[in-house]
Amino acid sequence: MPPNPDTPRATVREVGLRDGLQSIATIVSTARKIEWLDAAHAAGLREVEVGSFVPVRLLPQLADTAEVLAHALTLPGLMPSVLVPNLKGAERAIACGAPWMIVPLSASHAHSLANLRKTPDEVVADVARMRAARDAAGSRTRIEGGVGTAFGCTIQGEVPEAEVLRLLQALIDAGADRVSLADTVGYADPAGVQRLFEKARALVGEHLAGAHFHDTRGLGLANCYAAWQTGVRRFDACLAGIGGCPHAPGASGNVTTEDLAFMLERMGAATGLNVPALLALRRRVEGWLAGETLHGTLWRAGLPRLAAA
Amino acid sequence: MPPNPDTPRATVREVGLRDGLQSIATIVSTARKIEWLDAAHAAGLREVEVGSFVPVRLLPQLADTAEVLAHALTLPGLMPSVLVPNLKGAERAIACGAPWMIVPLSASHAHSLANLRKTPDEVVADVARMRAARDAAGSRTRIEGGVGTAFGCTIQGEVPEAEVLRLLQALIDAGADRVSLADTVGYADPAGVQRLFEKARALVGEHLAGAHFHDTRGLGLANCYAAWQTGVRRFDACLAGIGGCPHAPGASGNVTTEDLAFMLERMGAATGLNVPALLALRRRVEGWLAGETLHGTLWRAGLPRLAAA
Repeated sequence: MPPNPDTPRATVREVGLRDGLQSIATIVSTARKIEWLDAAHAAGLREVEVGSFVPVRLLPQLADTAEVLAHALTLPGLMPSVLVPNLKGAERAIACGAPWMIVPLSASHAHSLANLRKTPDEVVADVARMRAARDAAGSRTRIEGGVGTAFGCTIQGEVPEAEVLRLLQALIDAGADRVSLADTVGYADPAGVQRLFEKARALVGEHLAGAHFHDTRGLGLANCYAAWQTGVRRFDACLAGIGGCPHAPGASGNVTTEDLAFMLERMGAATGLNVPALLALRRRVEGWLAGETLHGTLWRAGLPRLAAA
Repeated sequence: MPPNPDTPRATVREVGLRDGLQSIATIVSTARKIEWLDAAHAAGLREVEVGSFVPVRLLPQLADTAEVLAHALTLPGLMPSVLVPNLKGAERAIACGAPWMIVPLSASHAHSLANLRKTPDEVVADVARMRAARDAAGSRTRIEGGVGTAFGCTIQGEVPEAEVLRLLQALIDAGADRVSLADTVGYADPAGVQRLFEKARALVGEHLAGAHFHDTRGLGLANCYAAWQTGVRRFDACLAGIGGCPHAPGASGNVTTEDLAFMLERMGAATGLNVPALLALRRRVEGWLAGETLHGTLWRAGLPRLAAA
């Protein structure tokens, strides 16, 4: 179906090489990641989170982030991003010329302490230091503050909306160029998504740049649609739904790229994505990650036939 | 989470015993179906499509519909329905005292001829005859016209919205008590769902009684949420997502009951459903249908933890 000119453009940001692979035991070589990235680019993906500048001992899977990023920067029109958990990571992202660095912040204090060993406000203070370092270096690397556990937390349970909103504003005040909301553990429902994104949009306007949903309990695409209804136009997703959930072995990870691309295109949105090429890449990923649990639904049935023979 | 008093009630109609089982090769005994129905009732389901009055040679799996219906009528508060493809089936439904009979109509002419061997308007004429038979018998069996392939068709491709709307009105004019829209083959997207359900609501008002989505390409719950946004409060679903798609072996069938129940409850809607009991019943269904491909997502991760310990 050709894009409907009345429907806005949508961007799918592929995060499989970071959020996906970081939970996958099979170590993927740098050459394979570059092959993967090239195929993703060829399928039309123009925003890709390529890795994370974390200590190698914590995430050996992502030890080659600088090399993958360097390759990504050679691909025409591709806007790569990297995750940075602290100032040291941000300095590497700046040194490597990453267009975007994503700073994870957990709105759940309990989750923040358990996973980042910092309070949310300590992460906000980090962002201020990253902004100062970026500006001092004359760098053009931009900062996205990603507020996770925004819809609930496996440790703390409910996360107050007011706290999520406070942290979004604090990130912008500290110098983040934009912010996004993430349902890190698959607790969000579409009504809650629509409510929180509407409030966030009212508070920070166009600084609200994207949505990151996990499909842990099957609501990933419903949540994307709910966020879309509030004006969100950038969605994170992983090819073949890789990534899983560390709190529920075997459970789904991020929203599946090819399913999301199909939904958006079928809605008439222009994504620039070639869904058959994504499905073909999925089959290659299946081979590369043999033995890992993959997810997604479209691959079973394939694309619908839309015109009579 | 307790239901939000500001959020409307929602009804999940379990169709696993009809739409689910009719595509399943494993023959399920009447005793097992009754056990299944009892557990579904105990888990809070109050609307169940218990079978179909079709010729036994066509669907031996559903040959015991009258017995299952008779048992369903003994369960307190349960509103069973049966599918009837023609006047003969309707006469059996009336004779058995079914509270509701559902008449399938395919908005795709090509699909209608291939599956029902009638044009859509011949089905409308059947409904008029069923209504006359019902009224002549002094029966209280009500008629739901279910308009299928409302969002596209595997044979014909696109199905015009105007034709779907025309057929909804024609069904009501012929005497149907209410109508519903079905995405029989998993072609619907949430934007299209919202658009068509809004138009249908504007045309037939409260006669529009429900939505029937398949999860063939992963959009089932997103489509439910889109329909919910237009005021739909009754959704068909199958436990364990059974049913599959005859056009795509291994593909998902109907929306999964336990996933849908979780979504609605998490949105704050009162469904009357006990999600842990549905998950427990799913495990029993897995045992009964060993070897069949089941679907759904919630079962892997389980319910979220919503309060701190």
